[in-house]
Amino acid sequence: MSIKIIDAKYYMPERKVLNSEIEEKFGLEKGYIEKRTGIKERYYTEVESIEKMATEAVKKISDASLVDMIVVATTSSNCLMPGISNYIQKELGINRCICMDVLAGCGGFINAFDIVNCYIEAGRIKKALVVGVDLLSGIVDKSDLGTVAVLSDGAGAILVENCGEEKMYFANIVSEKDEKNILYYKSDSKIYMDGREVYKYGVTKPVENVKELLDLSGVKFNDIKYIIPHQSNLKIMKVMANKLDVDFSKFYINIDKKGNTFCASIPIAIGQMLEKELLTCGDKVILLGYGGGLNTGSILLEI
Amino acid sequence: MSIKIIDAKYYMPERKVLNSEIEEKFGLEKGYIEKRTGIKERYYTEVESIEKMATEAVKKISDASLVDMIVVATTSSNCLMPGISNYIQKELGINRCICMDVLAGCGGFINAFDIVNCYIEAGRIKKALVVGVDLLSGIVDKSDLGTVAVLSDGAGAILVENCGEEKMYFANIVSEKDEKNILYYKSDSKIYMDGREVYKYGVTKPVENVKELLDLSGVKFNDIKYIIPHQSNLKIMKVMANKLDVDFSKFYINIDKKGNTFCASIPIAIGQMLEKELLTCGDKVILLGYGGGLNTGSILLEI
Repeated sequence: MSIKIIDAKYYMPERKVLNSEIEEKFGLEKGYIEKRTGIKERYYTEVESIEKMATEAVKKISDASLVDMIVVATTSSNCLMPGISNYIQKELGINRCICMDVLAGCGGFINAFDIVNCYIEAGRIKKALVVGVDLLSGIVDKSDLGTVAVLSDGAGAILVENCGEEKMYFANIVSEKDEKNILYYKSDSKIYMDGREVYKYGVTKPVENVKELLDLSGVKFNDIKYIIPHQSNLKIMKVMANKLDVDFSKFYINIDKKGNTFCASIPIAIGQMLEKELLTCGDKVILLGYGGGLNTGSILLEI
Repeated sequence: MSIKIIDAKYYMPERKVLNSEIEEKFGLEKGYIEKRTGIKERYYTEVESIEKMATEAVKKISDASLVDMIVVATTSSNCLMPGISNYIQKELGINRCICMDVLAGCGGFINAFDIVNCYIEAGRIKKALVVGVDLLSGIVDKSDLGTVAVLSDGAGAILVENCGEEKMYFANIVSEKDEKNILYYKSDSKIYMDGREVYKYGVTKPVENVKELLDLSGVKFNDIKYIIPHQSNLKIMKVMANKLDVDFSKFYINIDKKGNTFCASIPIAIGQMLEKELLTCGDKVILLGYGGGLNTGSILLEI
C-alpha cells in the first residue's frame, strides 16, 4: 500500500505584479529585485479569498470529488473553523470525508503529504487531496521590501491514491527551535522575516535534512531525478545544490515566474512538472520543505 | 505497536466566571444559564496567550520533553507560524521533534490524536504530546449570550507512547458539509454559533458516528467503561446517552465546572479522570469529538 500522485493542478490569481512596479515604489534601480531573489514576477489576489483560491486549484483536477480525505497546508488562513479543507469539501459536493488544515510553516505541504501517506499506508483511506495555499499579499507589511519583493499568492493541489503496489517512500521531518524569531506570522499583525537569518537557515538545515533522508533511504543522488524544493529564494536554492554537490539542473525551479508562495510552492511545482511531462512512473524525486517553525522536511517519493 | 496514554494534565486560567456575573450583565433571572446548559462556571484568561496556556498544561507532565512529536488541536489560535506546537517545543527545550498544529473544529483533538496514532503505528515515532487548546473568551461577541454563557478557555495535554504491545484502537472520523453555516470562526471576526442548529447536529451526527464506530470494532457498549465526549452542552450529552441507550453515568461530564473549551475539552476530561483514578489499564473508552466543520469523530481506545 503506497501513495501515488495521480494529478496536480495549481491556481495563481489574475494580477501579475512585475518587479518594475515594486522597484518604482521603493525607488530602486531596475534589476535590483531579480538580482537578489531570482524573482521576475509574482501574483497578488485582489478579489479571491484563500479558500476560494484553494478551491480553484482543486477544481482543475478531474475526479477530485472522489476523495476520502482533504488535508490543506497553509500559514495565512483566516478560516479557523471550518477550515479551508471543509470549504473545498463543500464546493466539491463531497458528502463524507476527513477534513483538516495543518499549520506547519512555509514547508507545511510536506507535513500534509506525510499525514496522508500515513493514512494510506494504514489502509484508512484510498484517495486524498493534499493542498497547499497561501495568500501572502494581504499580510505583508507594504513598507518591508524583504517580504514585498519575494512573496506571492497561489494554490496547488495534488490528488493521490493508494496504488496497491509497493513504492519507495521515506520522510524526514524535523522541527527545530527558532531561537532568534527569524520568521513569524501572528494573525493580528504582519508577516516578519529576517532575510539574513532566513538565508543562513535555508542554506544549512534543509541541506542537512536531505543528506539525512538519503542516509535513511540508502538511495544515492544519482538515482534521484528531481529535487522539488520550496521556492524561497533562487540564491538559497543554488547554494543548496552546491552544498549537496548536485547539478542545479536537478532542482526544479519556478520562483522566477511564481515568486515564493509558501505552502503552495511544492504542489504548484509538481503541477507544472506534470504539465511539462517531466515525471515518469518509477522516477524518484525529493520534495523539500522548509521555513517558519523552524520546520524542515523532505520526502523521497517514487512517482 | 499501539498508542498508550501515559499521562494527561490540564490548565485553566485564573479567573473563574460564575453564572451570576453573566446573568446580571444580560438581565437574566438566577439559574437561567445552568438550566439551559448545565454550566455553573467557566474560565476566562486575562493575561495568558493561547500558546502560554498550552505550555502551562504541558509543563505539568513529567517527561514531556522526551517526545518526538507535538500535535496541537485548536480553533482559535493566532499563532499561524510558528504554531503553538513550535512554541511548546521551544519552552520545553526540545532540540528536535515533529511539530504541527491542526485545525479541525471543536473536536479537532480527535484528529490530532489520530494523526499521532498513525505515526506510532507506522513506527515513525515513539512518544508524543497531543494538545488541545482554545482561547475563546477573546473571540466571543460579548453581546451574544449563546456563546458567552457556554464558552470557556482552557488547555489539555496528553503524553502518549508506543507501548510495544497490541492494544485495541479504532477511529471513525467524518467531515460533513455545514450547509447552513451553523458554527464558524474567521480570525478577523467573532465566533458564530446557531444554538438551535448546533443542538440538532449534536444530538444526531455524533450518535450515528459512535454507532458506526462500534459496528466497525465489533465491541458492545457493555464493554465500554466510559464515553468521553466533547463538552458542548449538558442537554446534548444527555440526549446522546439516551439515543445510544447508554446509562448517562458512562458519560464523563465536567461541563458544569469547566464550560465548553472546544479542542481542550477531551484532554481536560482525561486529565481529570487520571487524577480521580477512574481509568485502569485495559479499560476500553470512547473519545467523541464533534463541532465546527462539521467534523465528527470518535476513537475507541484501550487504556
